[in-house]
Amino acid sequence: MIRHISLFSIKPKPKPKPRNNNFFGVLDFKNSITKTTTLSFISSSSSANQNKPLFGVFSISSAAVNKVGAARHFITRSMSTPISSTSGVEQVLVDNGPLQAQLLTAVDDDHGGVIVDLKEPMNSHDFTSSLKASMLNWRQQGKKGVWIKLPIELVNLVEAAVKEGFWYHHAEPKYLMLVYWIPVTGNTVPANATHRVAIGAFVMNDKREVLVVQEKSGKFRGTGLWKFPTGVVDEGEDICKGAMREVKEETGIDTEFVEVLAFRQSHKSFFDKSDLFFVCMLRPLSFDIQKQELEIEAAEWMPIEVYAAQPFVQSHGLLKYIIDVGLAKVDKGYAGFSPVPTTSTFSNEKSFLYLNSQDLDK
Amino acid sequence: MIRHISLFSIKPKPKPKPRNNNFFGVLDFKNSITKTTTLSFISSSSSANQNKPLFGVFSISSAAVNKVGAARHFITRSMSTPISSTSGVEQVLVDNGPLQAQLLTAVDDDHGGVIVDLKEPMNSHDFTSSLKASMLNWRQQGKKGVWIKLPIELVNLVEAAVKEGFWYHHAEPKYLMLVYWIPVTGNTVPANATHRVAIGAFVMNDKREVLVVQEKSGKFRGTGLWKFPTGVVDEGEDICKGAMREVKEETGIDTEFVEVLAFRQSHKSFFDKSDLFFVCMLRPLSFDIQKQELEIEAAEWMPIEVYAAQPFVQSHGLLKYIIDVGLAKVDKGYAGFSPVPTTSTFSNEKSFLYLNSQDLDK
Repeated sequence: MIRHISLFSIKPKPKPKPRNNNFFGVLDFKNSITKTTTLSFISSSSSANQNKPLFGVFSISSAAVNKVGAARHFITRSMSTPISSTSGVEQVLVDNGPLQAQLLTAVDDDHGGVIVDLKEPMNSHDFTSSLKASMLNWRQQGKKGVWIKLPIELVNLVEAAVKEGFWYHHAEPKYLMLVYWIPVTGNTVPANATHRVAIGAFVMNDKREVLVVQEKSGKFRGTGLWKFPTGVVDEGEDICKGAMREVKEETGIDTEFVEVLAFRQSHKSFFDKSDLFFVCMLRPLSFDIQKQELEIEAAEWMPIEVYAAQPFVQSHGLLKYIIDVGLAKVDKGYAGFSPVPTTSTFSNEKSFLYLNSQDLDK
Repeated sequence: MIRHISLFSIKPKPKPKPRNNNFFGVLDFKNSITKTTTLSFISSSSSANQNKPLFGVFSISSAAVNKVGAARHFITRSMSTPISSTSGVEQVLVDNGPLQAQLLTAVDDDHGGVIVDLKEPMNSHDFTSSLKASMLNWRQQGKKGVWIKLPIELVNLVEAAVKEGFWYHHAEPKYLMLVYWIPVTGNTVPANATHRVAIGAFVMNDKREVLVVQEKSGKFRGTGLWKFPTGVVDEGEDICKGAMREVKEETGIDTEFVEVLAFRQSHKSFFDKSDLFFVCMLRPLSFDIQKQELEIEAAEWMPIEVYAAQPFVQSHGLLKYIIDVGLAKVDKGYAGFSPVPTTSTFSNEKSFLYLNSQDLDK
């Protein structure tokens, strides 16, 4: 479950589990069937099968469920050696009736855990049964983190998952991700995202005019304030590409990314989350403005002195700094950070390292 | 609801509401009381009261509830002018019985919306009634975004909120934040956090030895690989302070922050979230290593040539870059970004702007 945030192999800090950690503590089976059975799997636990989705039928007797706490401790104690049979659970199985529960379909993650990506509607009772059975299965397999992704349409299952000891990891408008850590120690569930990333674009033409906009909504709507184009970087988008996209969307101007001139980190931007705001210099490749109708009231090329003379800009330390670094770049060879594509041995994805190429190449 | 991510006043992109947007679509009132009543508030809607928590009793007849869809449209159409009476709702009130529902306690946010921070246990039926009544109230007041923060102990209310049209905004282990946007257009609910922020520390003493560690867990456990200290920046923590904290925690060494030498953005680090990894140079202020027992197997000052000669470092483009920029800083005056404290007119919080002070002061 160690998530490699970098080539340095960063360890998330071990986190205490939330108090509401009552896995196996809530037992709400309503049906009792008296047919005798023993534990059986349709799915195989062979290593060859470990990257395949699991789907099987897992039979637990109601007595077994009530004693699963004991089974859990047994399995936990024997976790240091691979478990190759179902004996850990069979220890507490007694023959007073099975409850049929389908195992949840899961795929292995890259860190010894499993991911359940539920899509089909399910009632919470069946879900609880399947989750209990699946958890026994995963414990037996020595799995670590268990992730359950619930689309908002399956909100009826959230309470059931939490009752089984899961807690929230992150959420987006259309889904909630819950997580559980099976081993007793060494919780390395990765930290959640803490920052939004946004850009502001310093774009100047050969006449020392900067590209500025007036916005149709927001704090400065109707104030007549001219601003540099800005925007939030999309999920999964590179900062340099996000900057070019925002300028294109707001003004129609094509640009080439030059450098990150500076960045600012600010906190509590929304609730407890923070922002990282990157001031980017871009070189214009086209000059005819086509402003976006939805968000932009006006857009133009404006002499930088006119932009800088606006009272709001004058009264604002950070905005003045941005003019200073932009002009230092244009006039004095100020070196920002430029993007260098790199690859990691941990993945084949290209990612950008931003550094002072000017000084490094000296 | 425009969230000012920066001094540029960034507008989050308008987002379509999720399909499950059935506010007023689910009507599940089970009680029917026949006493005649009309709409009444204990809480005042005067502007003097707008920053105070609201708590009142809101009476709606079951017939009114069934016709609230019509009332909603009435209110929506008249939203362009301030609503000073309850006439928008009274249009559809008929006298066949009230349902008592306590309004939810809420505080105004800074963007025309309200925040409900529920803490006390509540059953989902009462919650639904209160939420319906409160939503009518907030619509009438012209509120925009409605935030509901539900601690994980109140997971029983999540489904009810979603049935009323709320969707997920973000989640942390102990709570889930839901949101609803009342106006028909102009949804400016802020984007969720997309990035984790981490640091790696380049710390060199006068003998050209770098501070390195071996970790007790993670990918490199037991491999003998020596790494620079690394860590995830805490929620609300400045990058420069996070770097000093991590070095202190892992090695006991006190440091002074010098510069961000470079940073890397990488995607899909966990699910769809990204990482920003800042390579930081710190100047050591103490030299006796006290390694942390929990996470660190070994820590020492190591000649940089010995560190760099490790096969893993040699085979790794990014790690080689980091050595290059670190040595360029030490030997050739490479300029990174140093933190400059700034304040914003939007808040009194100090935040750090990181820029190339060396070039700016030329």
